[in-house]
Amino acid sequence: TIYAVTPTYWRHVQKAELTRISQTLRLVPNVHWIVVEDSETKTDLVRNLIAESGLVVTHLHAKTPPFEQLKDKDPRWKRHRGVEQRNAALKWLRSNLQVNKNNGIVYFMDDDNTYNVKVFEEMAKVKKVGVWPVGLVGGLNAETPILDEKSGKVKGYKSGWKADRPFAIDMAGFAINLDLILKSEASFSYKMEKGYQESEFLSYFIKKEELEPLADNCTKVYVWHTRTEKPVVNGVVPGLEV
Amino acid sequence: TIYAVTPTYWRHVQKAELTRISQTLRLVPNVHWIVVEDSETKTDLVRNLIAESGLVVTHLHAKTPPFEQLKDKDPRWKRHRGVEQRNAALKWLRSNLQVNKNNGIVYFMDDDNTYNVKVFEEMAKVKKVGVWPVGLVGGLNAETPILDEKSGKVKGYKSGWKADRPFAIDMAGFAINLDLILKSEASFSYKMEKGYQESEFLSYFIKKEELEPLADNCTKVYVWHTRTEKPVVNGVVPGLEV
Ligand SMILES: O=c1ccn([C@@H]2O[C@H](COP(=O)(O)OP(=O)(O)O)[C@@H](O)[C@H]2O)c(=O)[nH]1
Ligand SMILES: O=c1ccn([C@@H]2O[C@H](COP(=O)(O)OP(=O)(O)O)[C@@H](O)[C@H]2O)c(=O)[nH]1
Ligand SMILES: [Mn+2]
Ligand SMILES: [Mn+2]
Repeated sequence: TIYAVTPTYWRHVQKAELTRISQTLRLVPNVHWIVVEDSETKTDLVRNLIAESGLVVTHLHAKTPPFEQLKDKDPRWKRHRGVEQRNAALKWLRSNLQVNKNNGIVYFMDDDNTYNVKVFEEMAKVKKVGVWPVGLVGGLNAETPILDEKSGKVKGYKSGWKADRPFAIDMAGFAINLDLILKSEASFSYKMEKGYQESEFLSYFIKKEELEPLADNCTKVYVWHTRTEKPVVNGVVPGLEV
Repeated sequence: TIYAVTPTYWRHVQKAELTRISQTLRLVPNVHWIVVEDSETKTDLVRNLIAESGLVVTHLHAKTPPFEQLKDKDPRWKRHRGVEQRNAALKWLRSNLQVNKNNGIVYFMDDDNTYNVKVFEEMAKVKKVGVWPVGLVGGLNAETPILDEKSGKVKGYKSGWKADRPFAIDMAGFAINLDLILKSEASFSYKMEKGYQESEFLSYFIKKEELEPLADNCTKVYVWHTRTEKPVVNGVVPGLEV
């Protein structure tokens, strides 16, 4: 089972994003979608979308604390995004699944990225932590692990932003064996330096040399860090859920 | 058969967009995808993506003439987009299909919008021209035909932009019976006023009162006019197709 963890929050494009992501997941066998709303309570919009998706879903909510909420004018990188929600999902996994009973892979899947279904086929091969390139991130057309020609192992990273991080990998560029998650207490934290969530999280589990390069030895891009434009909305049509 | 016509052009997010759209179409039975590249020749990127999609596809190309090409600093609305490509698709339909032999529906499907697969189920009901709401367009959270309470027919439009157009409907908000297309010579044109392509095109076929309101009498949004942010790309990874 692939446990795909998706934080999500209300904005005008939310339903469109979740529609795209849920339709992608319909093409993936054996996926369990963990949707974590950044809200005080679960919303009907997300509840109904899940019900109509036909997917196996766990629906949670966990509100980002006020001190970390993005103000309208803040640039995105000023805040950690999705921390509270991913931690709620980790907690759910650890409370509901057991090491010798449940097998699986955990993947952090944002609601606005673009996923080729092939990335989920790659996950089936993960023993500890699998990694692959991510398109359109960090100022380059892609970030990718660099492999040592002889050993085929990860020796470094090509990234437009702090390539010297211990693990210069975007959230969309790795998946972890469920066992490792269940046996650890690793989580995300507001105390981490901005942009270091992935790197610090992976450091709990593994050394760089142990990473498993996938997607044809990191020569294929199966996931893109796309972002959707904020639409201009000067009015709403009454009674229509958009 | 639904003939889905998609103009597309090269930019960093092209492969991501086409990946999303092609995966959506994999969930639609009986679709024939007509992909029209805005380029001098067909590109390998699109050719390979089509080959791997498993869909029934016709791959065409038609380059937008220089006078109509969007400059980097132009706002989008200053140019007609997709005219050349949609006309190439209309030409292909008229050259390759016949009124009493081929049945179908024609839908203009941009590469960057978001489509709930339910919109394709609605198309199966179209006799002449079916219409439905479109989310996130024209300055509102949605544009929608307004129905007459008594007759249930379209009496006007709710739109944030020139709601008084004869057909104030986005390209994503209607589908046409193939017969009507094959029996006419209707096409798109650079001579039309900006923002009037849909309205003028529909005027060839039908009167407002004949439009068929779908999506539960236009109370459901199954398509969103999303736009993807242009990513910052200061460098490219050699040898990686993104
Ligand atoms: O206030 C917020 C901002 C973001 N997110 C979610 O956290 C993930 C990452 O956020 P975003 O895509 O905005 O960040 P980026 O892609 O820039 O890292 C996405 O699934 C968002 O829906 C959230 O739950 N609350
Ligand atoms: O120079 C261009 C600009 C756009 N398009 C295509 O035409 C359609 C509509 O363009 P866009 O989404 O940019 O316009 P909008 O949504 O603003 O109408 C999309 O499928 C694009 O891929 C194209 O082929 N060439
Ligand atoms: Mn994102
Ligand atoms: Mn568009």
